Amino acid sequence: MTSTRTHPFDLATGLTALGDGRFTGRTTAPYANMVGPFGGITAATMLRAIMEDPRHLAQPVTLTVNFAGPISDGPFEIEARPMRTNRNTQHWSLTMTQDDEVTTTATAIFANRRPTWSLTEAVPPPAPPVAAVEPSPVPDFIAWVDNYEMRFVEGGIAEIGQGRGTSTSTLWVRDEPARPLDYPALTALSDVFFPRVMHRLSRVIPAGTVSMTVYFHATPDQLAAQADRYILATARAQHFGTGFFDQTAELWNHDRDLLVTSHQIVYYKDTPA
Amino acid sequence: MTSTRTHPFDLATGLTALGDGRFTGRTTAPYANMVGPFGGITAATMLRAIMEDPRHLAQPVTLTVNFAGPISDGPFEIEARPMRTNRNTQHWSLTMTQDDEVTTTATAIFANRRPTWSLTEAVPPPAPPVAAVEPSPVPDFIAWVDNYEMRFVEGGIAEIGQGRGTSTSTLWVRDEPARPLDYPALTALSDVFFPRVMHRLSRVIPAGTVSMTVYFHATPDQLAAQADRYILATARAQHFGTGFFDQTAELWNHDRDLLVTSHQIVYYKDTPA
Repeated sequence: MTSTRTHPFDLATGLTALGDGRFTGRTTAPYANMVGPFGGITAATMLRAIMEDPRHLAQPVTLTVNFAGPISDGPFEIEARPMRTNRNTQHWSLTMTQDDEVTTTATAIFANRRPTWSLTEAVPPPAPPVAAVEPSPVPDFIAWVDNYEMRFVEGGIAEIGQGRGTSTSTLWVRDEPARPLDYPALTALSDVFFPRVMHRLSRVIPAGTVSMTVYFHATPDQLAAQADRYILATARAQHFGTGFFDQTAELWNHDRDLLVTSHQIVYYKDTPA
Repeated sequence: MTSTRTHPFDLATGLTALGDGRFTGRTTAPYANMVGPFGGITAATMLRAIMEDPRHLAQPVTLTVNFAGPISDGPFEIEARPMRTNRNTQHWSLTMTQDDEVTTTATAIFANRRPTWSLTEAVPPPAPPVAAVEPSPVPDFIAWVDNYEMRFVEGGIAEIGQGRGTSTSTLWVRDEPARPLDYPALTALSDVFFPRVMHRLSRVIPAGTVSMTVYFHATPDQLAAQADRYILATARAQHFGTGFFDQTAELWNHDRDLLVTSHQIVYYKDTPA
């Protein structure tokens, strides 16, 4: 039984363990996208399967999720297999299936992380403090966006069609209602960006992520310190062509710590205007 | 039998099909790294397994390779499984094993690509023409580098220790001897960069890629037009911390076409100077 006070994110990523790395879950209405669930929630659920597997080692370093086919509303099964466990690193392969058809594949690496020399070479995007940026209205025909409070510094949805000459979007974002940050939530936040192609083509066209990779830089201590504060998220495309574009993204905290770098490749169909 | 004229790259990535997506290959001395083979050649070999599988569809869009454990000199086996084939996309999962132990895992997506609206938002790094940049001497204790002609514009190996204040390296590079470009070669070229951490820490320390992702933007026509000409390759790190750093890279052609964007996360051990 889930408490009525359980956060929608935890309901959406909740899994029942069947043993031997097998889990069942089900899609939830609040995280629905145009077709099937929000990709970020699927990616977060894959990561959570590993974290709920008693065989898992330490914390995630990287997760790659491949969206192989549509996920129907309803139950799904995840199989998480530890492919190799070393002293300090562990490699996982995962599949999500519905009626024995693969909808999603993933790989992940977990590792014991130790203090070392540290440096951040990337620079956070310019942004006023959270309080100086108004929450942005979001499209009411996409359910999942209601689970995030988005305060756009640049490249909000309302700017699609303005021919800005850049695909960059930058926003302060957090779960709505607010929720303490953890690795699954960071995973989902890595996918909160609307398809970059719409910003450059200046119109809404069909588009969907086919593969996303998350590199986790945040330590458990940083997650605990972050709690439920806002994250400064920024994304931009590098190349659009022959039906696919790539996106690179960063998630920063208020102290200019880089929590995540993330990349994805996205399908698009340039239907006539 | 292989001809004596076969390029070392083709020998190193050469596979014998056993059927049902199973292949055998073996490491070759020219692509040896400090320990085991050059990661780029392993990644290229994984991609080649799919391309030699008669079930494969069209061309690669993305490949993610996870280096799970050391690869010993000698034979290995690859199993390539098509996890889901749609009308225009196909998802693969792969494992490389030695003596039934997993050394490497990978996922890949292949797709039919069609002409669409196209735009490159990234900008190539400043670089003089190839002919104006001298070939750079490379360390003679690493075998694989002899398979590449490297002309460093910035951040060559000789600059490690100079405290440049950036991790960026940019070079004109091609296979040595020259070889027509194909997707496996692009994959290997995505990994030609020495560990970025050495440029920032200004000393040589243990480091190794744990996962790399390649997004292929180049079309077959672009590969054919490229032939064996030089590629402008650039890489930089974003964050170093708790034993891992990430690297983002781009491969451009002489016409300023972006052929590949690639990302990796790399382990390092900051041994005292």
